[in-house]
Amino acid sequence: MNVVELQRFGLEGLVRGERPAPMPGPGEAVLRMRAASLNYRDLLIVRGDYDPSLRLPHVPVSDGCGEVVAVGEGVTRVSTGDRVVASYILDWTHGPPTPEATARRLGGPQDGVLAEFVKVPAHALVRVPDALSDEEAATLPIAGVTAFRGLFEVARIRPSDVVVVEGTGGVSIFALQLAAGVGARVIVIGSSPSKLERARALGAWATIDRTAEPAWEERVRALSDGRGADVLLEVVGGDNVARAARALRMNGKMLLVGVLGGSVAQIDMLPLFRQYLSMHVLSVGSRDDLSALATALPALGARPVIDRVFPAFDARAAFAHLESGAHFGKVVLRF
Amino acid sequence: MNVVELQRFGLEGLVRGERPAPMPGPGEAVLRMRAASLNYRDLLIVRGDYDPSLRLPHVPVSDGCGEVVAVGEGVTRVSTGDRVVASYILDWTHGPPTPEATARRLGGPQDGVLAEFVKVPAHALVRVPDALSDEEAATLPIAGVTAFRGLFEVARIRPSDVVVVEGTGGVSIFALQLAAGVGARVIVIGSSPSKLERARALGAWATIDRTAEPAWEERVRALSDGRGADVLLEVVGGDNVARAARALRMNGKMLLVGVLGGSVAQIDMLPLFRQYLSMHVLSVGSRDDLSALATALPALGARPVIDRVFPAFDARAAFAHLESGAHFGKVVLRF
Amino acid sequence: MNVVELQRFGLEGLVRGERPAPMPGPGEAVLRMRAASLNYRDLLIVRGDYDPSLRLPHVPVSDGCGEVVAVGEGVTRVSTGDRVVASYILDWTHGPPTPEATARRLGGPQDGVLAEFVKVPAHALVRVPDALSDEEAATLPIAGVTAFRGLFEVARIRPSDVVVVEGTGGVSIFALQLAAGVGARVIVIGSSPSKLERARALGAWATIDRTAEPAWEERVRALSDGRGADVLLEVVGGDNVARAARALRMNGKMLLVGVLGGSVAQIDMLPLFRQYLSMHVLSVGSRDDLSALATALPALGARPVIDRVFPAFDARAAFAHLESGAHFGKVVLRF
Amino acid sequence: MNVVELQRFGLEGLVRGERPAPMPGPGEAVLRMRAASLNYRDLLIVRGDYDPSLRLPHVPVSDGCGEVVAVGEGVTRVSTGDRVVASYILDWTHGPPTPEATARRLGGPQDGVLAEFVKVPAHALVRVPDALSDEEAATLPIAGVTAFRGLFEVARIRPSDVVVVEGTGGVSIFALQLAAGVGARVIVIGSSPSKLERARALGAWATIDRTAEPAWEERVRALSDGRGADVLLEVVGGDNVARAARALRMNGKMLLVGVLGGSVAQIDMLPLFRQYLSMHVLSVGSRDDLSALATALPALGARPVIDRVFPAFDARAAFAHLESGAHFGKVVLRF
Repeated sequence: MNVVELQRFGLEGLVRGERPAPMPGPGEAVLRMRAASLNYRDLLIVRGDYDPSLRLPHVPVSDGCGEVVAVGEGVTRVSTGDRVVASYILDWTHGPPTPEATARRLGGPQDGVLAEFVKVPAHALVRVPDALSDEEAATLPIAGVTAFRGLFEVARIRPSDVVVVEGTGGVSIFALQLAAGVGARVIVIGSSPSKLERARALGAWATIDRTAEPAWEERVRALSDGRGADVLLEVVGGDNVARAARALRMNGKMLLVGVLGGSVAQIDMLPLFRQYLSMHVLSVGSRDDLSALATALPALGARPVIDRVFPAFDARAAFAHLESGAHFGKVVLRF
Repeated sequence: MNVVELQRFGLEGLVRGERPAPMPGPGEAVLRMRAASLNYRDLLIVRGDYDPSLRLPHVPVSDGCGEVVAVGEGVTRVSTGDRVVASYILDWTHGPPTPEATARRLGGPQDGVLAEFVKVPAHALVRVPDALSDEEAATLPIAGVTAFRGLFEVARIRPSDVVVVEGTGGVSIFALQLAAGVGARVIVIGSSPSKLERARALGAWATIDRTAEPAWEERVRALSDGRGADVLLEVVGGDNVARAARALRMNGKMLLVGVLGGSVAQIDMLPLFRQYLSMHVLSVGSRDDLSALATALPALGARPVIDRVFPAFDARAAFAHLESGAHFGKVVLRF
Repeated sequence: MNVVELQRFGLEGLVRGERPAPMPGPGEAVLRMRAASLNYRDLLIVRGDYDPSLRLPHVPVSDGCGEVVAVGEGVTRVSTGDRVVASYILDWTHGPPTPEATARRLGGPQDGVLAEFVKVPAHALVRVPDALSDEEAATLPIAGVTAFRGLFEVARIRPSDVVVVEGTGGVSIFALQLAAGVGARVIVIGSSPSKLERARALGAWATIDRTAEPAWEERVRALSDGRGADVLLEVVGGDNVARAARALRMNGKMLLVGVLGGSVAQIDMLPLFRQYLSMHVLSVGSRDDLSALATALPALGARPVIDRVFPAFDARAAFAHLESGAHFGKVVLRF
Repeated sequence: MNVVELQRFGLEGLVRGERPAPMPGPGEAVLRMRAASLNYRDLLIVRGDYDPSLRLPHVPVSDGCGEVVAVGEGVTRVSTGDRVVASYILDWTHGPPTPEATARRLGGPQDGVLAEFVKVPAHALVRVPDALSDEEAATLPIAGVTAFRGLFEVARIRPSDVVVVEGTGGVSIFALQLAAGVGARVIVIGSSPSKLERARALGAWATIDRTAEPAWEERVRALSDGRGADVLLEVVGGDNVARAARALRMNGKMLLVGVLGGSVAQIDMLPLFRQYLSMHVLSVGSRDDLSALATALPALGARPVIDRVFPAFDARAAFAHLESGAHFGKVVLRF
């Protein structure tokens, strides 16, 4: 079968390869892939920045939607013909994360979904509701699940909460849609007026242009009657963490989902003590979170935002587009 | 000033009375009432079934919306001219309930809101958003807050949860609107086809006519892929509690909000043990819950359902209408 | 190998049988049993009162301690020679209970531990600390784990909490020891002065003889400054549930662990509403709960209370002793 | 009456002063002080490092035990003659912290307890159990409550948890005693062999000398079977935060209680993401936490560790002793 292989680190290391088609073992299923979507993590992996010791050649990309074409012994969870999406962390089915459950991950260290056929444990699969297209379903496993678990399992937001979302990356857009969908007042912080306008169209209650207002945390406090936000999704890292802390209310929660601006956070902690803050590292979620998300999106009238669809075997162009940062929404591949 | 007084128990004991207008003490505010709404508890009080030792004459009814016309010393929370709604449990401002915080209650033992002017502690007041009318705001304090706290603070529902709501009383309709508003799949159990049709129009994912299907819990299980519901709002009491338990999934939550069908529940507990259920008595909520609800409803695009509006001083007719059980939505009084 | 088999329901149906010794499959371990302990559930099973459709002959009893004598392919969790205790609910390793994880149970429907050798999934095993004897370890899986999870995972008690424990059965004694061990003030309700005296020796802060004081809930309230207890372990069922509710403080938690006095609880719910109670059905716990308990008991300076030790193949006498109700502490079998 | 006043910043600014004795207003009580205890915060205040804008002269010190000698109108919570301790955050009675409830604090901005008589709101008072001496009770309000709330309300530790405590300051010693008291396995990290020996005598399960083992987090992992600690009390700040994070298990909790080593934490966040950590800023607790602590300590058989007792009006010497860092346990003042 045809696959996309990373033969050496770098975008130009992505080439078409050939592998034997997989057969399902006990408890496993084989999918014919229909669509995949890219995450920033996939780009780090391809560049060699995520895990320089990754064994090559490697089939990249974690998130994909496919059709079940074969199941192994003992599989009752899915049947041939089912349209499914695979959970990125293959053995984390439910409950809190454990080292055992979070070891195997699609797209690294395990081979990913840029292949005509992919074999996964059946317990990692979730049936896709009719209301979601293949491309939309393919966007859920990392970005969607991270936002969903962060908001509903970790922060446990409730309607009327003030939720600050930084940027308009994949997780941030899902967080905006989900939080606005349940009646939270979402404030999006960004630097591109046109992207902020799109955020408002997706349900943002307010937006703040950080270029125009570098001390955006003060406006967050003003918008929330001086109290500060209940929850903040922090994706920048570095110095921004301290600013984010000042935007939160007493007893507020900071969800840490990324370090785009520098992996070393410098946090002046003295001012934080009177705020009784908590900070929670998010890292995706379980199969049950993915299942809940797939049901919830149509119920909330929200559709995953897709920036552009590339042919699956033109993965290099798709990655280049992701790298450019020009996108708003997910970059998708179609088989 | 004019008031409606209960001079002896029974609907015919409701008569117009006269009282001196109240003056605000330190930390207090006086409201000119604009609208009030009735709860089943008000009817029990008027009949003498709630607290036979209640001292008469009594000004009944707990829920109301008014305009601040005077504030006492030290009040900064509200100002003259603010349109506000008062929290039923006057001193429960936030956090969990305590005996101290839950002693004083509007409409019994304290005098209620069927008066031209009403004096309350300022910490019990919440400003009404422009998006809500006086009549709509008046429906929130008991029925709305009970549903809001039950779903978001006790059960902590999340989008995609299956939530069963029994009946179409005041709390049940709010629970339907709020749960559907956050993407839960709401199943309403009822006995009136026309009321169930209205429930579907308000967002119910499914409805079950218990007259046609007395073993409705089996259909709940079928609708939820054999798992059972995540959360169930139980308002009937009596034998129905056991049936409700069978409708829930393992580790599911039953919210107990009423005992219309008999205050003595007979629960066969043996079958419950394998289900790991928990049961939670709901009893309204705090001022902060009321505040969150008032912000949340417009954000969710939901409006309180008002059945009929009576003149405030025609309270007897309003109570008779509530007693008839013919209503769908809240019975409201207008000053 | 030798086993104890239940060939027909009733104590006299317990006879010695012979079975082939088990071999471990992949992921499994075989234990040479050293000790077992009886629970009330085992007695119900033997009598045919628990599951009349149980397939006979059946090897009874769920709780046991043994030595690993063989492991199957892929087992790294335990090694030959390890002294271990097996978790009653074989596949519930951690997190909340699910239908999948709670289906297989030792001692019914699966064969139990009254056999020279027993085969179990290795993920169900917990190594026994040196501080616990074989007999002590054998008492943990049902009674100990139910008390541990109830107090620390469900009720989340903290030092100084007032905890009411009804009776002196297996779960109740563990609850007394664990709660007193973490600085809770434990009140034991019982009807035998000599058993209550032993409860005080085990750390009870107060005891109440329900024969002398049938309205024991009033004394609970008096002992807790009029507030009521934070947590109550309810094992009686029937009418007692209502009494237990009145013994709790506002927002208190009732842990339901049994129905000795009648499986149908009649609960007058009206008085409960002002108390904001929650009721939680307990049903044992996970392998991780068992592991935490085995570590915690020695750390708290608590030892399982063993009433009497019988030879394993004299199971009938052991069951008769349990049935007599004369015991205080666990009835144990020694291989 | 006599007081100790800070007339200018610096230890030499502490002098004896004279003030009129306070009279209780409505809801207030006046205490005749018997003992006080020092916290690091008091030293920062005296030096002018905590709040340079503090209005002088100021009566310092937050924590004290006294006898009620007068109560104002409406006070029922305490009576003349009661021995009581005052909650540092005067209006935070229960539940989560709010800006309103946490504004008034003893010892800054409000005047503190180094006075013969002190006036406080009665709702801030907790009666002292007979088992605690005046000096012991005086050590509870900041250090004891911070440890208690952190362990039992925020981290919700349970018996058998591995808890890492950094250092042997006031909060750390309380955390050691409380965690060990409930059967947790406490690992103390320190740099003084003699202080670590005292930590073992107080119940530490293990100690690590960070001078001898700078990479102490590796030993924490080894001691916890490679998993890492469940909870860690971080008091150092700066670079140490990253090291602390590596000592924790997946989904573990870091409690941030101080910044002795530098208020700017530099946290390399990339390695944290796979650990799913949460970090929680602690800042003391409510009056109900103080009440629970006062009851819990004797129940756990733990006594506050007192390093040395000074005469109250020799506060300067007591502060100098605290500043030296030579103490192990609390520095106390006796009236």
